Amino acid sequence: MTVRERTEESSPRANTRKPTMADVARHAGVSLKTVSRVVNQEPHVRASLRQRVQTSISTLGYRRNEAAARLARGATMLTLGLVMENISNEFYSRLAAAVEAASAEHEALVVFGSYEESPDKERMLIESMYTRGVDSLIVVPSAADHAWLAGHASLTTVFVDRVPLGLEAADVVMLDDVRGGRAATEHLLAGGHRRIGLISDDDGVSSVHDRATGYRQALRAAGVRADDALVVRGVFDPWRVSYEVGRLLDLADPPTAFFATNNRAAIGILHALRERPERPAYVGFDDFALAGVFNPGVTVVRYDVTHLARSAVDLLLHPSQEPRRVKVPVELVARGSGELPPS
Amino acid sequence: MTVRERTEESSPRANTRKPTMADVARHAGVSLKTVSRVVNQEPHVRASLRQRVQTSISTLGYRRNEAAARLARGATMLTLGLVMENISNEFYSRLAAAVEAASAEHEALVVFGSYEESPDKERMLIESMYTRGVDSLIVVPSAADHAWLAGHASLTTVFVDRVPLGLEAADVVMLDDVRGGRAATEHLLAGGHRRIGLISDDDGVSSVHDRATGYRQALRAAGVRADDALVVRGVFDPWRVSYEVGRLLDLADPPTAFFATNNRAAIGILHALRERPERPAYVGFDDFALAGVFNPGVTVVRYDVTHLARSAVDLLLHPSQEPRRVKVPVELVARGSGELPPS
Repeated sequence: MTVRERTEESSPRANTRKPTMADVARHAGVSLKTVSRVVNQEPHVRASLRQRVQTSISTLGYRRNEAAARLARGATMLTLGLVMENISNEFYSRLAAAVEAASAEHEALVVFGSYEESPDKERMLIESMYTRGVDSLIVVPSAADHAWLAGHASLTTVFVDRVPLGLEAADVVMLDDVRGGRAATEHLLAGGHRRIGLISDDDGVSSVHDRATGYRQALRAAGVRADDALVVRGVFDPWRVSYEVGRLLDLADPPTAFFATNNRAAIGILHALRERPERPAYVGFDDFALAGVFNPGVTVVRYDVTHLARSAVDLLLHPSQEPRRVKVPVELVARGSGELPPS
Repeated sequence: MTVRERTEESSPRANTRKPTMADVARHAGVSLKTVSRVVNQEPHVRASLRQRVQTSISTLGYRRNEAAARLARGATMLTLGLVMENISNEFYSRLAAAVEAASAEHEALVVFGSYEESPDKERMLIESMYTRGVDSLIVVPSAADHAWLAGHASLTTVFVDRVPLGLEAADVVMLDDVRGGRAATEHLLAGGHRRIGLISDDDGVSSVHDRATGYRQALRAAGVRADDALVVRGVFDPWRVSYEVGRLLDLADPPTAFFATNNRAAIGILHALRERPERPAYVGFDDFALAGVFNPGVTVVRYDVTHLARSAVDLLLHPSQEPRRVKVPVELVARGSGELPPS
């Protein structure tokens, strides 16, 4: 049944109090018990009575409380929980929009919550959703241990973007992060760069870690020595990134290019370059709406966020005993910033 | 009780199956009925039995299904519905983050949904949330008539950003849009501009309409004739805005400045100016994360989105028979684009 059908079926009459089961009983001249039996499709109701009740139901526009009925039947509420770091970050708002769209295809609604950078808040959120009856979760996990989730046998959880620590048997939909990190770095190497800085946040997070691995693989394959002086780790906000980029550009032997492992890092580079005369090349990871509006446009490693979200929802709806890993492909989009020559 | 307290209280034991009411009964050596009575705080249970059951509950870490229990008691689920145009638009993702934070202060979770530009989808979403037991809604309404919502007597709805058509008695939290439009236009007039273009989307939406009213008020107060040739209405996406801006700049007597009534319109101007030699001044409405990274930075009319969200949640939690209107103040932030001189 599609969402549209469901809604039309349950469309309320305007400007009337919502009719109750008691109203239906009164209108049909039968007992409440009989109405309840008809509504719940129980057997042993005479056909003529059933007909009378159904006529009253449609005349009054009665609709039972679906949520209560579902819970009473022990059925799963089609409400997914989406737990993320921060929905105001564009990576997460795009993901949320895509998860919402993918869920709507299955008539599911989405409850969301942000844990900022706090594993405690992440756990509280999940507990809170669970307490309200949400038993299907899509989680972009924090860097903390998630072993405690194994205790929630009735929670179906799919992780997105990052492999959760401490949960061997988890379903995860991830990006092809190693390949993305390699592609970004190879692109800069192909442009003649040899001193390539890495701007990265928490590499306790698997995706960040894997992107950095791709960066090192590409350098090694090209015979370029990885220089730890050009690597910045654990920076989260664009202002901090901006400061670190300035610091690297002030080195005696500065980088001529940067690989930014996420959108915040790329935006931090944009901040830094507003104030600097240098024009280093850079490639970001994660596309963002304004990437093409800057001059030069921002070259990024991107992926289909709809693919990411659909895969997660599919895994949720088809649980398996075997842990599954889905890898979403990535591609490099050249827009100008990644094609600047070494200076 | 704070969220933190609740979560600690209900923290599950890791790596164990979730204990059921039957487990508690077995452990305490009492009947299921007795456990149920204790859990539901019914009278007529001997103090010694009550004590025994409570000891078993804490030993096993039993937690009843709160959602089912709440519904069974007929209590309101503390889950708010948030209905918006599109969460991947930065205005909405900021609003969603703020609504989530304001809701968390009251232990409420947020279900969200986007209706894109479809009033049918908006109605489906609201119906769908209602069917699942959500009876508290925050809605950024589409331009369509919302009289049908009056039929949902049990839905508590607060509208945000826009006054809904066809619902006289609605609670609305809005921005001071007229003042914002006036402030933006006065700022450009003070910079010496006389030919000021207006880039606007659907003015069937009250906020857009009011911002345009502020623009016209400021022109009139300054004795500047409003020129309809400089007004673009009904453009939604940045690409279309970009085209229209180019068209205005090609006029024989082009505008030297623009007022963009929302973030998409301002971003459309940014797109257009990438390709053009002119440097018109412009002021946007709605702040966005990258507004300060462009060169010049984007001058905008901004407001405290936390204030907007908190006001909406407060109205939801304190329903009143009297319809209420809350106006959130706005301010102009000069960053460069609004201070460019007429050419």
